[in-house]
Amino acid sequence: MLQNLVRIQLRKNGQILGLVSRRLASTTPKSDAQNSLAFREDFSTRHIGINQQQETEMLKTLNLKSLDELVVKTVPENIRLNRDLNLSEPLTEQEMLEYAKNLASENQIFRSFIGLGYHNCHMPPVILRNIFENPGWVTQYTPYQAELSQGRLESLLNFQTMVCDLTGFDIANASLLDEGTAAAEAMTLCSRNNKRRKFLISDRVHPQTIDVVKTRAEPLRIEVKVQNLNDMKFDSKDVTGFLFQYPDTDGSLLNLETIVKNAKDYGTVPVAATDLLSLCLIKSPRELGAEIALGNAQRFGVPLGFGGPHAAFFAATDKFKRDMPGRIIGVSRDSNGKPAMRLTLQTREQHIRQDKATSNICTAQALLANISAFYAVYYGPEGLKKKANHAHLHTLVLAEGLKQANNQVLNENFFDTIKVKPTLSISEIRKRAEEKKINLRYFEDNLHVGISLDDTVTSKDLNDLFEIFNSNENFEQVVKRVNLNELKSNLNSNENLFRRESNYLQHPVFNTYHSEALLVRYMKMLENKDVSLVHSMIPLGSCTMKLNSTTELIPVSWPEFASIHPFVPPNQVKGYHKMFDELARDLCEITGYDKISFQPNSGAQGEYAGLRAIMQYLIANEKGDRRVCLIPTSAHGTNPASAAMAGMKIHKVNVLKNGTIDMNHLSELAKKYEKNLACAMVTYPSTYGVFESKIVEMCQIIHDHGGQVYLDGANLNAQVGLCRPGDYGSDVSHLNLHKTFCIPHGGGGPGMGPIGVKKHLAPYLPSHPLVDIPGVNRSDSFGSCSAGPFGSSSILPISWSYIKMMGSRGLQRATKVAILNSNYMMKRLEKAYNVNYVGEHGFAAHEFIINADFKSSANIEAIDIAKRLQDYGFHSPTVSWPVHGALMIEPTESESKDELDRLCDALLSIREEIRKIEVGEWDRVNNPLKNAPHTQEVCVNTNWNRPYTREVAAYPIGYIKPESKMWPTCGRVDDSYGDKNLVVKRN
Amino acid sequence: MLQNLVRIQLRKNGQILGLVSRRLASTTPKSDAQNSLAFREDFSTRHIGINQQQETEMLKTLNLKSLDELVVKTVPENIRLNRDLNLSEPLTEQEMLEYAKNLASENQIFRSFIGLGYHNCHMPPVILRNIFENPGWVTQYTPYQAELSQGRLESLLNFQTMVCDLTGFDIANASLLDEGTAAAEAMTLCSRNNKRRKFLISDRVHPQTIDVVKTRAEPLRIEVKVQNLNDMKFDSKDVTGFLFQYPDTDGSLLNLETIVKNAKDYGTVPVAATDLLSLCLIKSPRELGAEIALGNAQRFGVPLGFGGPHAAFFAATDKFKRDMPGRIIGVSRDSNGKPAMRLTLQTREQHIRQDKATSNICTAQALLANISAFYAVYYGPEGLKKKANHAHLHTLVLAEGLKQANNQVLNENFFDTIKVKPTLSISEIRKRAEEKKINLRYFEDNLHVGISLDDTVTSKDLNDLFEIFNSNENFEQVVKRVNLNELKSNLNSNENLFRRESNYLQHPVFNTYHSEALLVRYMKMLENKDVSLVHSMIPLGSCTMKLNSTTELIPVSWPEFASIHPFVPPNQVKGYHKMFDELARDLCEITGYDKISFQPNSGAQGEYAGLRAIMQYLIANEKGDRRVCLIPTSAHGTNPASAAMAGMKIHKVNVLKNGTIDMNHLSELAKKYEKNLACAMVTYPSTYGVFESKIVEMCQIIHDHGGQVYLDGANLNAQVGLCRPGDYGSDVSHLNLHKTFCIPHGGGGPGMGPIGVKKHLAPYLPSHPLVDIPGVNRSDSFGSCSAGPFGSSSILPISWSYIKMMGSRGLQRATKVAILNSNYMMKRLEKAYNVNYVGEHGFAAHEFIINADFKSSANIEAIDIAKRLQDYGFHSPTVSWPVHGALMIEPTESESKDELDRLCDALLSIREEIRKIEVGEWDRVNNPLKNAPHTQEVCVNTNWNRPYTREVAAYPIGYIKPESKMWPTCGRVDDSYGDKNLVVKRN
Repeated sequence: MLQNLVRIQLRKNGQILGLVSRRLASTTPKSDAQNSLAFREDFSTRHIGINQQQETEMLKTLNLKSLDELVVKTVPENIRLNRDLNLSEPLTEQEMLEYAKNLASENQIFRSFIGLGYHNCHMPPVILRNIFENPGWVTQYTPYQAELSQGRLESLLNFQTMVCDLTGFDIANASLLDEGTAAAEAMTLCSRNNKRRKFLISDRVHPQTIDVVKTRAEPLRIEVKVQNLNDMKFDSKDVTGFLFQYPDTDGSLLNLETIVKNAKDYGTVPVAATDLLSLCLIKSPRELGAEIALGNAQRFGVPLGFGGPHAAFFAATDKFKRDMPGRIIGVSRDSNGKPAMRLTLQTREQHIRQDKATSNICTAQALLANISAFYAVYYGPEGLKKKANHAHLHTLVLAEGLKQANNQVLNENFFDTIKVKPTLSISEIRKRAEEKKINLRYFEDNLHVGISLDDTVTSKDLNDLFEIFNSNENFEQVVKRVNLNELKSNLNSNENLFRRESNYLQHPVFNTYHSEALLVRYMKMLENKDVSLVHSMIPLGSCTMKLNSTTELIPVSWPEFASIHPFVPPNQVKGYHKMFDELARDLCEITGYDKISFQPNSGAQGEYAGLRAIMQYLIANEKGDRRVCLIPTSAHGTNPASAAMAGMKIHKVNVLKNGTIDMNHLSELAKKYEKNLACAMVTYPSTYGVFESKIVEMCQIIHDHGGQVYLDGANLNAQVGLCRPGDYGSDVSHLNLHKTFCIPHGGGGPGMGPIGVKKHLAPYLPSHPLVDIPGVNRSDSFGSCSAGPFGSSSILPISWSYIKMMGSRGLQRATKVAILNSNYMMKRLEKAYNVNYVGEHGFAAHEFIINADFKSSANIEAIDIAKRLQDYGFHSPTVSWPVHGALMIEPTESESKDELDRLCDALLSIREEIRKIEVGEWDRVNNPLKNAPHTQEVCVNTNWNRPYTREVAAYPIGYIKPESKMWPTCGRVDDSYGDKNLVVKRN
Repeated sequence: MLQNLVRIQLRKNGQILGLVSRRLASTTPKSDAQNSLAFREDFSTRHIGINQQQETEMLKTLNLKSLDELVVKTVPENIRLNRDLNLSEPLTEQEMLEYAKNLASENQIFRSFIGLGYHNCHMPPVILRNIFENPGWVTQYTPYQAELSQGRLESLLNFQTMVCDLTGFDIANASLLDEGTAAAEAMTLCSRNNKRRKFLISDRVHPQTIDVVKTRAEPLRIEVKVQNLNDMKFDSKDVTGFLFQYPDTDGSLLNLETIVKNAKDYGTVPVAATDLLSLCLIKSPRELGAEIALGNAQRFGVPLGFGGPHAAFFAATDKFKRDMPGRIIGVSRDSNGKPAMRLTLQTREQHIRQDKATSNICTAQALLANISAFYAVYYGPEGLKKKANHAHLHTLVLAEGLKQANNQVLNENFFDTIKVKPTLSISEIRKRAEEKKINLRYFEDNLHVGISLDDTVTSKDLNDLFEIFNSNENFEQVVKRVNLNELKSNLNSNENLFRRESNYLQHPVFNTYHSEALLVRYMKMLENKDVSLVHSMIPLGSCTMKLNSTTELIPVSWPEFASIHPFVPPNQVKGYHKMFDELARDLCEITGYDKISFQPNSGAQGEYAGLRAIMQYLIANEKGDRRVCLIPTSAHGTNPASAAMAGMKIHKVNVLKNGTIDMNHLSELAKKYEKNLACAMVTYPSTYGVFESKIVEMCQIIHDHGGQVYLDGANLNAQVGLCRPGDYGSDVSHLNLHKTFCIPHGGGGPGMGPIGVKKHLAPYLPSHPLVDIPGVNRSDSFGSCSAGPFGSSSILPISWSYIKMMGSRGLQRATKVAILNSNYMMKRLEKAYNVNYVGEHGFAAHEFIINADFKSSANIEAIDIAKRLQDYGFHSPTVSWPVHGALMIEPTESESKDELDRLCDALLSIREEIRKIEVGEWDRVNNPLKNAPHTQEVCVNTNWNRPYTREVAAYPIGYIKPESKMWPTCGRVDDSYGDKNLVVKRN
């Protein structure tokens, strides 16, 4: 009853669902579900790749009678759910779209002049349709298999080049999650570099950035001070870095060269949070003296999306190049000696340093980085400069018009944002603005208003603003009155101190594709180099490349979801909150948790947030000295990295030879650290693809010793509808919506990693400095982990609609079929490859691991098999993780039996090829596996001097046919050469 | 002033613009055009492929100082416009989308139960996004170059297979324009077959079909009688065929076997207009005894679109196979002896028979046929049957519920449509329906109402209908009351006379791709076989493959344009009429005509409509004996075919060696037929790509001898902004919107061919039996030429937005650049290839012809060069038309200089290859040109025994690189084998 009341109250405010009773009926639209004559299309049959007949065949192969028997043999009895999930009746695709449209219409699109790092912009329709809405660009995996990824690697290299050019630095990465976390990464990068533990932040940095940095700093015991720039002192030589906003959060351009020089003199790293569009007119951070620059590339063509996803950028001077956070694209060379791109410096923080990590980044915002890069390619330096001038000149006019009416403009020099002390009261300003459906930035002092313009602003917008601020001039009158060229703050004037004089974006790629035909062909040429889900299955273990259906993706580009600033008042986003509410309720029902936070915008962020919530809970309960975190040695590297970042002390739990956790060791450690145990982190099913039978006991042991259980949700797709972490003992999990719940990988991002928690942890979830998060008090919360209050909100419709269309039965069947597909493949492969890790009854979960190390018998390693698979038209499964020398295969439920068989046939055929080497029929060095992948250039070449035929190279199996062959566009890429010779931009 | 009044009045009614004054200002939305500080994006720079710098370089190559000088040298002085067009200020892409959205919002989406051959359906989102909105499927050319078109040829073969299966026939074509014209084609096919000239039509055929057939029959002197089936007599043995609707227009299934047998006994061809969805449940037309079946495939996944475009289908028994109208895909074999598809039986009606033609079909509805085919592929026989049952069972319930309330249902047996005599008055019914935003079919007798359901209908829809008809039962109550299985008319019951027992869609292609992942991969695999504008320029002379921009295409899939039945009341389509109005005004301004008719839905339809309007005008002015039509021998084959179909008598005008019309001969003929001259048809610039200098004189001569001038608008893109047919003497033209005005080719359709006429012809434009056409009286009009009142309305936003975004200057520059590009290429090629046809000053228009016949010197013909171009990555220019042994090249304004140079380099390189044959360096038979195109299968093959290298075969020039090579997927297709061995469906 109380819960009902809570729920109703929260929904009344149009906000996220708090504590949810499972018994509450779902609120979905009226559908024709009860109509017995209707042919109701079942979306789950479109999502799931096998039909009933194939299911029967496959079960037969496994000697099973039914999917239920398979579940009995794989999922431990004591955790099985044994009931349907309480979700609404599944909607058809059409009903879903109608419902989504209704819900979208409850969001109100105001014109935003809020700024704060988020700006209106137009995504060119040609990019919208051919990148953002194109499965060929959206469903690719992270470009680890470089030979099948040269297209998007080139585009990401364009992104890095653009960032380097505009910021003036030598090195940039291929995007981070958001400006806030980028700033936090800058802080830890500084600290890693000069080993100091004090970080200063200008009080003119965006508040959400300050909050994320402060939150991050706390457990890392880095002291953060927010100060006026004038008060900053560096002479004690203990300041690792200082962060300033350029232009600052109020819009001002301040003369920073002295303070920057001063900082550097004392060994402090100056870090600029900056804005790409402004850099088209103002001096680059590098020219200013900064050593790191970061920011949000959103306004380069990416919708506001109520907070994300957008690509943050990060650039630095050369000295930081081996410590850079995130993914970096580099140019190396291939086996034929030609230039080829790859992910470089892959020795990521968490992989080498694990429990000493100060960064846990995995996901990038690749898709959004690509959009921003194409935006720059399409506009080129001149177009971008014109856009910058458009924003700037209109802001000059705005300032003049406001001043004329006695509004006080506080900025002396500015780009596109001003801070105003109006003559009218703030409440009057707000009232007038709302009447015109305009959002402004209202400062907390209730005296000032911020106005941030952009390259989409029109004279009508300015007239509206003049009316709001009681100006009696209109746009034309102001323009007539003022001689703009003489305005002191015009950034184009030669006298202007801030004026940029250096060139940018001079590479031909930014100066060629300026007609739509040319851009489309360039995008298509790149797209066609890359394997994505539109070509074949991508069977990456732990990465769940399932169908990303069109219907799920359609609402994402609707303006009602896309064109909304993250900091608008809640009453403008009722549709969003209704969706959050429904998705949270559904996720709670699916996981057995009580509350969801949508703030973490990647899986790793989710881990971090979950662990911080645990720590905050412990501190609140005066158990702050409990800092020990137990993690199995088999865990993903992000686990210890996240724990370290949350201030925990990691102890590793042994794993037995069969891949399961050593329960004795676990008990031992739990007992040993009884006084200090904070939590254990467990992945379930395990990273080895097994439903460990002792999961309940494990949780119990941790709880018995005063710890919390963090269950890594990476493999939740094996559990949906079958068992629930919240039921069998877990306290918190992150949910990789980009895996289990159908958000596409986007070639390496965006992802979303909301967390689910049990009731007792709910008060400690992420909060936000500018937006109230329903059910969370700022004082209880550990702080914020993302810049956006609800993470990458605009992609949540994908997961929401997936659940709504699948319904309980559909989701459950998807999970069962995922497990069936995995076991079917394992069965077909087990005679040729060793499978070491299975559950008690000999079955795998949704993925399985085969040994792919034939080094001693045939000089063949897992990587050779991976590369040879490209000749067979397949993207390789996960290589050498979590087991060295192995392949981890995850077929997902969306693949057809034919596709599973094709991959099995390929792997079996490759095993036969290995046998040829083993028996001496093929050379141990010069053979199709070692030489894989084979490019067209090699195969269509007069010179062919290999001891096997061209056909064996290119068409190694019957179904690979010349008329549909997908060629790798470069030979095997040389990793060590690329690491030694770091080239991260085009020149 | 009068004109102003007329205009205002017409616009008040929300309808098409009648007579337009050029001086009237355009009504476009307020934009920021006057804002001097704004960076206004200029769409024309995105549409036009070259920039100012390249323009200067290219002009230099031509020894010209400016584009204007080029115009002076190409366009005859006495026709030059020498002023800007009076169009509205160009909109940016964003402004255009906003404006289109506003306009769209003035259309009202009612739920349609009108039927009449147009039904609601859902286009699966996966097809919407990956076909309908995908430039890879939308921008292809007609698949004449089969080796680069195997993807869509396979899809069109699927369409033919689907039509054959459902209708029961052996042969089907790859779509016609609409059901009305398909019926007209059936009539002429019958007549060609049995040489009779009397055609009977059941009075239960859709009225728009009857009207199109009657219109067509008149000038062909075929007697058409519309009769009750019971009154039909065949024993006089003079009835060529008889057309019936099955199920009929009232929805009834009648027992037709006797009458069909009776007709056949007397040599009359029974023709069934039918409905594909119903055929999933009822006997096929073939089983009924019909010999031809036709209809509209729209309800298989294609939006209503206020009338089109949709794909009509046409199937017949084997005996008609060599006379079938339209395009047919056939399976032949390639140079390697493997099966390969192609357009078969290309000896089209107008090409062989010219002035004796009874069909002038060119355009198909390829894109829509592909959508319908994929729809069938995705649903398969079972899914389609379920959909048919959904519609049928709901109609049974509807009938029961209505009867219960004393409404009289007139149909005994029916599928998804019933005719009702309601208890309430028609006006009351209409009032109630409109309140619920429901459209019904209101019969002219004001006593009956038609209700047509479909596979999207819900129980709520039925409840609404029950309320409208005063039933006191709701859906559930009716279902409960009636035992549906026992209903006599249930088409699933074994006793039902009409029940279908034969199988359909048993081919694996209809039984495999039922998950979204599989369908996407199938569509992508096919897409990747075909060259489209996303790969390279398609320089087809006379076909104008310019940019089809994303912004232009976006509104087409909005429901406000897509989800509207063609026969809704005008007040529901105010947005559409406003758009027609604006587009008509703009087209009048561009052409110099006074009125536009949008009804003709292809260029050939436009020709026909224009000539019929001329004849109707002559008849109205008691000059009906003027039937002579003068046509130059250089004219496109559709010209004489259309004239013949309009009842004209054709006389050919000689063409001089330089390609211009023989003025003496023209004068001679004009004089000779002075008494009977109806008109002359001229293409301008000529089909030889030349602005003939004597065009004014030509028109004058015709007028002086009492004739009208029909100016074929195929080459209007060379005139826009430079000269206007209506100014220099033409009376009527069709405007190929799919060429000059950016509607994409869609792989062979849809097109649109509205006509513009001078004032005196305006009253005689097409009318419609069900919808009032503003400014046209039924009694004056020649009748209707298309089933839809405004043709393929839903693609008109493309041309409308193109004009709005380009503005006068943009359009004019596009024309100039098209001419520049053409002359630049000609200049580069003229040393290597002979150019025979240029204007007085030595310049070509927007296209030019090179001699490509090297038969005597090198055994090389134009077709060899065309095929060799595929190895260079290019779709060939037009081969051997209008000049045998030549190539006609049209680069358009959208191509970049680099792309033009690439094509020139390819042609120059090929000329060098020919020289190698000429000098004996290469063999005359076994050389890369004769063997072209080279497939991957040939090049990646151990066996290579050609006297040239693989590299010469596959990468004949530097810019063709392995990493981006587009391969033909079959060798050269054997045309004569395919003609001899006709295979038109999959088996």
